Amino acid sequence: MDFSTSAAVVFPDAQAVMRRALELARRGLGRVEPNPCVGAVLVDDRLTLLGEGYHELYGGPHAEVMALRQAGSAAAGSTLFVTLEPCAHHGKTPPCADAVIAAGIRRVVIATHDPAPHTGGSGIAKLKAAGINVEVGLCGDEAARLIAPFTTLFTQGRPYVHAKWAMTLDGKLATRTGSSKWISNARSREIVHQLRGRMDAILVGIGTALADDPLLTPRPAGLRSALRIVLDPNARLPLDSQLVWTAGECPVLVVVSDVAEDERLDALRNQGVEVLVSATSADGAGFEIAPILQALGQRRLTNLLVEGGSRVLGAFQDEGLIDEVHCFIAPKLVGGQNAISPIGGRGAAEMPELTSLIEPAIQVLDGDVYVRGMIRR
Amino acid sequence: MDFSTSAAVVFPDAQAVMRRALELARRGLGRVEPNPCVGAVLVDDRLTLLGEGYHELYGGPHAEVMALRQAGSAAAGSTLFVTLEPCAHHGKTPPCADAVIAAGIRRVVIATHDPAPHTGGSGIAKLKAAGINVEVGLCGDEAARLIAPFTTLFTQGRPYVHAKWAMTLDGKLATRTGSSKWISNARSREIVHQLRGRMDAILVGIGTALADDPLLTPRPAGLRSALRIVLDPNARLPLDSQLVWTAGECPVLVVVSDVAEDERLDALRNQGVEVLVSATSADGAGFEIAPILQALGQRRLTNLLVEGGSRVLGAFQDEGLIDEVHCFIAPKLVGGQNAISPIGGRGAAEMPELTSLIEPAIQVLDGDVYVRGMIRR
Repeated sequence: MDFSTSAAVVFPDAQAVMRRALELARRGLGRVEPNPCVGAVLVDDRLTLLGEGYHELYGGPHAEVMALRQAGSAAAGSTLFVTLEPCAHHGKTPPCADAVIAAGIRRVVIATHDPAPHTGGSGIAKLKAAGINVEVGLCGDEAARLIAPFTTLFTQGRPYVHAKWAMTLDGKLATRTGSSKWISNARSREIVHQLRGRMDAILVGIGTALADDPLLTPRPAGLRSALRIVLDPNARLPLDSQLVWTAGECPVLVVVSDVAEDERLDALRNQGVEVLVSATSADGAGFEIAPILQALGQRRLTNLLVEGGSRVLGAFQDEGLIDEVHCFIAPKLVGGQNAISPIGGRGAAEMPELTSLIEPAIQVLDGDVYVRGMIRR
Repeated sequence: MDFSTSAAVVFPDAQAVMRRALELARRGLGRVEPNPCVGAVLVDDRLTLLGEGYHELYGGPHAEVMALRQAGSAAAGSTLFVTLEPCAHHGKTPPCADAVIAAGIRRVVIATHDPAPHTGGSGIAKLKAAGINVEVGLCGDEAARLIAPFTTLFTQGRPYVHAKWAMTLDGKLATRTGSSKWISNARSREIVHQLRGRMDAILVGIGTALADDPLLTPRPAGLRSALRIVLDPNARLPLDSQLVWTAGECPVLVVVSDVAEDERLDALRNQGVEVLVSATSADGAGFEIAPILQALGQRRLTNLLVEGGSRVLGAFQDEGLIDEVHCFIAPKLVGGQNAISPIGGRGAAEMPELTSLIEPAIQVLDGDVYVRGMIRR
């Protein structure tokens, strides 16, 4: 909001206030992780805006504090709309619940509970104990979706998994000869680079690494720099690949099985590549995905982008470990019963009755179709 | 146009007049075939509407005649906008070029030439010989696309091929076990039924016929009743299938190879099914598609809808015989490297640089995505 103009901002209803808070919260995407995105708006009884703010950067002040600062003394007696339950614990900053109480806030409207096991509910309890009127649930679904990566990390101990692929209109990742450049158009690729720019890690299989020799970095540089991960049971990643060459500037993690030769592992390590030995799947053809994600969760990586190929996406899908989909469909046909399909693996036996995506967002990008959505559980 | 109101309709420019003619022409889709859809608008020098019409039904009057009738004596000295070159030959009705000349039209603006080998150009020649000012090409691409089925039939002697499939967001026609009911939602299926309702023939492979036991009829009934065709090398179509059971009400053609047993063929024929013996492909696994289409072209079937499965669509694609695509994408994931992809066959070796579809039209139908477009040649 621009406070240089004298006209007061008045919201039409409570939902509009919370929508504004959600809009502010979203600005923190890619900047605040492993914290959740949070937005806060302070209004008086007539829903006149008194102050607003959002969590801008990991380690920086929380949304509630930003809004309180902006409102100053006007905060006393006002209502706070906040997208997530205020924290009651000392983290990088003092507890927000204390600040809310100290400012004399009379009523707090919260979109969704704090899902973190060690703090969930304690912020609300503290506010109520101080005599503040607390309501929870306004725009709750939307707020919960916004912090889904944070929730996944805190409740399941693993990163939130974004699966991304680009395919032809006849459902192929590549032609029968493996040719895949370029399926999608420039605008679709721009979106992929933006997505990469807010990830904590980006993962591909060794097949994709060998076929495309990718850098897996966002161009232009993004909000954060992602760990680049290759699932590579036999440690076949070439020492002259772009990934290995740039390992000094931007970290690379190669996940290998216990059959990989020590000599190969040493050579990779000598180039600055980190090596993680992990368990293979029952059929021996790939990895068990869950333990790898647990290892990444221990590093507090919040968002992981899986860029393929078919086998890797299939392994994630078979273990139920895809949380969100980013699918780019180009109006091209290639045909071929041996051309590769986006998600391999074993696959489901039955066609799901309901859609797999919750309220998919569909965008047309110069003729390409971008379908994005969270997976229904 | 509603002539009961007294206000005159004046078009802003020539393109707007032709757009109106195209809009009228489109109303004939599914009703006029094997004739082309045509629309006509008569205006004076100030682009005031004098009369308009379109070819409504096969065997009925042509668009130009409808417009002339509506204009009456006002037609003299006016300009005719027509989406297709007026005919100069006696078909089911007398030549339109003669009617245009007789009405005293001064100028004719034509969107596109008549592509039919026996008449192309003669209408224009006749008009010019009568001293009429003739211009060709306004909205020409759009007009040519509108009559593409007619052009294909007349220049290539085969029906225009619409390929239709419904797939999951990960590019599967069915799960690994073959389950495909229902991929797409009710609105998508409604569009498919509308499409069926304007086709001259609908074709599936025996795999699809056995798996789904389809009726292949539009519900509710459409503008015309399509010949139902099954590619069935060994004549395996069950006598108790819905197709065979309804062959008396709505014709069924089974295309077989010369290895099909006579006994099977006789049994099918006894149920009212027509049998066509056609050449198999070089690998013996399916049919050569081109000769089948020539046989259908000889019956003057203009629009053919190919509804799969993967092998049949692959055969059409490999022979370059898909003209238009209707792809329905449901936001569902099933995974599975053995799940079937929409277009099988041999497939292209290289990813096309350009899109395969010309200006695809993309529509979101309750979360399903419908991509439709003509194939680039």
